[in-house]
Amino acid sequence: MPVFANNPDRTSWLHVDKHSDFPIQNIPFGVFLTRDDIITIGTRIGDTAIDLGALHQLGYFEGIPLTDDIFLQDTLNDFIADGRQTWRAVRNRIADIFDDNNPILKNNKSHKEAVLFRLDEIEMQLPVQIGDYTDFYSSKEHATNVGTMFRDPDNALLPNWLHIPVGYHGRSSSIIPSGIPVHRPHGQTIASGAENPNFGPSKLVDFELEMAFITTDANDLGEPIPVDEAEEYIFGLVLFNDWSARDIQKWEYVPLGPFLAKNFASSISPWIVTLDALEPFRVAGPKPLKKQLPYLQYEGDKSFDINLEVGIKPENAKEQIVCRSNFKYMYWNMSQQLAHHTVNGCPINSGDMMGSGTISGPTEDSYGSMLELSWRGEKPLKMKDGSERKFINDNDTVIMRGYCEKDGTRIGFGEVSTKLLPPLKSKS
Amino acid sequence: MPVFANNPDRTSWLHVDKHSDFPIQNIPFGVFLTRDDIITIGTRIGDTAIDLGALHQLGYFEGIPLTDDIFLQDTLNDFIADGRQTWRAVRNRIADIFDDNNPILKNNKSHKEAVLFRLDEIEMQLPVQIGDYTDFYSSKEHATNVGTMFRDPDNALLPNWLHIPVGYHGRSSSIIPSGIPVHRPHGQTIASGAENPNFGPSKLVDFELEMAFITTDANDLGEPIPVDEAEEYIFGLVLFNDWSARDIQKWEYVPLGPFLAKNFASSISPWIVTLDALEPFRVAGPKPLKKQLPYLQYEGDKSFDINLEVGIKPENAKEQIVCRSNFKYMYWNMSQQLAHHTVNGCPINSGDMMGSGTISGPTEDSYGSMLELSWRGEKPLKMKDGSERKFINDNDTVIMRGYCEKDGTRIGFGEVSTKLLPPLKSKS
Repeated sequence: MPVFANNPDRTSWLHVDKHSDFPIQNIPFGVFLTRDDIITIGTRIGDTAIDLGALHQLGYFEGIPLTDDIFLQDTLNDFIADGRQTWRAVRNRIADIFDDNNPILKNNKSHKEAVLFRLDEIEMQLPVQIGDYTDFYSSKEHATNVGTMFRDPDNALLPNWLHIPVGYHGRSSSIIPSGIPVHRPHGQTIASGAENPNFGPSKLVDFELEMAFITTDANDLGEPIPVDEAEEYIFGLVLFNDWSARDIQKWEYVPLGPFLAKNFASSISPWIVTLDALEPFRVAGPKPLKKQLPYLQYEGDKSFDINLEVGIKPENAKEQIVCRSNFKYMYWNMSQQLAHHTVNGCPINSGDMMGSGTISGPTEDSYGSMLELSWRGEKPLKMKDGSERKFINDNDTVIMRGYCEKDGTRIGFGEVSTKLLPPLKSKS
Repeated sequence: MPVFANNPDRTSWLHVDKHSDFPIQNIPFGVFLTRDDIITIGTRIGDTAIDLGALHQLGYFEGIPLTDDIFLQDTLNDFIADGRQTWRAVRNRIADIFDDNNPILKNNKSHKEAVLFRLDEIEMQLPVQIGDYTDFYSSKEHATNVGTMFRDPDNALLPNWLHIPVGYHGRSSSIIPSGIPVHRPHGQTIASGAENPNFGPSKLVDFELEMAFITTDANDLGEPIPVDEAEEYIFGLVLFNDWSARDIQKWEYVPLGPFLAKNFASSISPWIVTLDALEPFRVAGPKPLKKQLPYLQYEGDKSFDINLEVGIKPENAKEQIVCRSNFKYMYWNMSQQLAHHTVNGCPINSGDMMGSGTISGPTEDSYGSMLELSWRGEKPLKMKDGSERKFINDNDTVIMRGYCEKDGTRIGFGEVSTKLLPPLKSKS
């Protein structure tokens, strides 16, 4: 099925600002609570949220094989499980319904009242029930920076890094949507040279600029997904802030990896932008520096040109952009990650989420974490309000944004914005 | 509410063998497919499976606040979310219904026909939908053995080990119930001294003898669970075989921990034995070797005396027991694990599962993995059929069993039994 929804010449009868992330060519999917406290699956054009549950009840998806309640759910999991043909049919239909040349809904006042919401009337929810969450470590610049700081500048990359899209399992239960504040976590840390650890709030809370993709049901236990088929199982992407407590991480992570340093919170942007919508923005990825095993070799462009930025907004000061990066810098692409993840037969389900790992670029202002931007605190960032930042301060809000732009079409992700609150009081 | 179900003097009108793991004092919970292909929640006394959905429909749980469909589900998650008071009320009621002195169901032939099944008439399923799975590393003997083999015999434990119940996140999607066979996984490995990795079936597939506990909804994001309240949130335990591909693990695990070496399969026993049923078998745990931080300090006995064994059954030979261990050897107990897991505010949900880590004891025949039993292959085990085992061979079945015994009462877990099949053919 062709993706008519991507037609760059189409305009909508809904108002769309020139620099909006959400033109009619985007059509992302999310879950929101309406003004009537009803939860529904929806999409967004410009600054208008669209209730797909109501649209479906009014018959606008006639002819597409969908169950009656597919959009009247509190997660996208079942819709995602329906597969790519269905996602495409629904996006194409939405593009048609809101096309400037289509008068049917445009001229139906009562239908519009049932279906359309201003953004301030809705409350975005977590879009999927995330069964399993995996985080990769796929930016060569990030892995090199970390290796240089903590190990050996001359051998910054570990021997496996150029052969394996290194990944590890994360915690699903602490993944939250944009807008939910997070308390600075407590944990064990150890002072340099000390024999025993201390307990208290982390002093080194950091963001990690990532993107994450959401999968559909892909394989049974034992069945690998070939690299060239992997994209069939990717529904779409979100922005992802993989909050990290560096001092907790440093003490706990040997030999089995990060745990409490990560699972106090991880934030995602609430609108899932489909892989289909990102089709025009494919680019070639970095050339392999070592020959990769056949199961990781792919043909065609599997990387995506997505501009990314991170801002820090102190409590009573203006936001300041501290990082500009791009998803295309990733050394290992999503298809390789998914092929690797399943080469041993690990099953992938609808609603699973896979993070890219911190997306650092080649220049110092493109590093995707404070750890790298301040070079573990040695080069604090100057803020416009006169303060300095080595890591994130209490009451700072961290905001990540991402968008693609080409030939006058802009497709974006909105933002993931999370405020770091002071630690809760603790008995210990 | 007292736990009448544990009364050691009670006998059932259902037949129970003298050495059964499932006397009327056990009353575990599981999910099974009946002879009519209906999925239901059930329990087991002796070798009789009991359909709790049918019992509930027949009114036997009258007076206990339960929704009509609480047992007519394909997972125990909702029942577990009902909390400890409900679990106790249901176990007490089941003990009453099947008590030798209670004639009501005993003398009702048509009710018995609807409710009781022989074990060969049912098919056990995964008992919970596991949201998040965490694996700990809490046996000092195991951590010491691994540290001795791979690092430094004089400093086998890493500096954090005596301060932290070290844990890491695992994959939920590849957790399977007893009886499902597993193919030897493919993956990357590297020969000693080689520059580049190879791809192929793992040559070093191993079991890890563990137990795992299943939680109920415990806390909101940001809220820690105090160590002394932790047991309130533990529903029960299962036997757990944390399959591991040692050669894949060795190459992939730095710096973020094990990934494909573990997530090809993890097997659990299908009957969840409640923490209440294990109450008579509490024992003191090992004495701390270093002072623990206040949030990890507890009072009372939080360890459990559970005898464990592992057998290997080659394709055409008798099973041979290769390991006898005990859950009481764990240096860190479940309460400490749960307090640690949440000290940063990580949310715990109904159906989450936490593995103990490999349970090795102090003697060479109590080590909980082939890695340790064969000392990474240097001391192969002699099998009765004349063959040797360094790790697990194709078509071997690995069987784990566990039970408590005290004052004539035996409470057991049955078994988790998994056959390792040859690798699937691969294109790469």
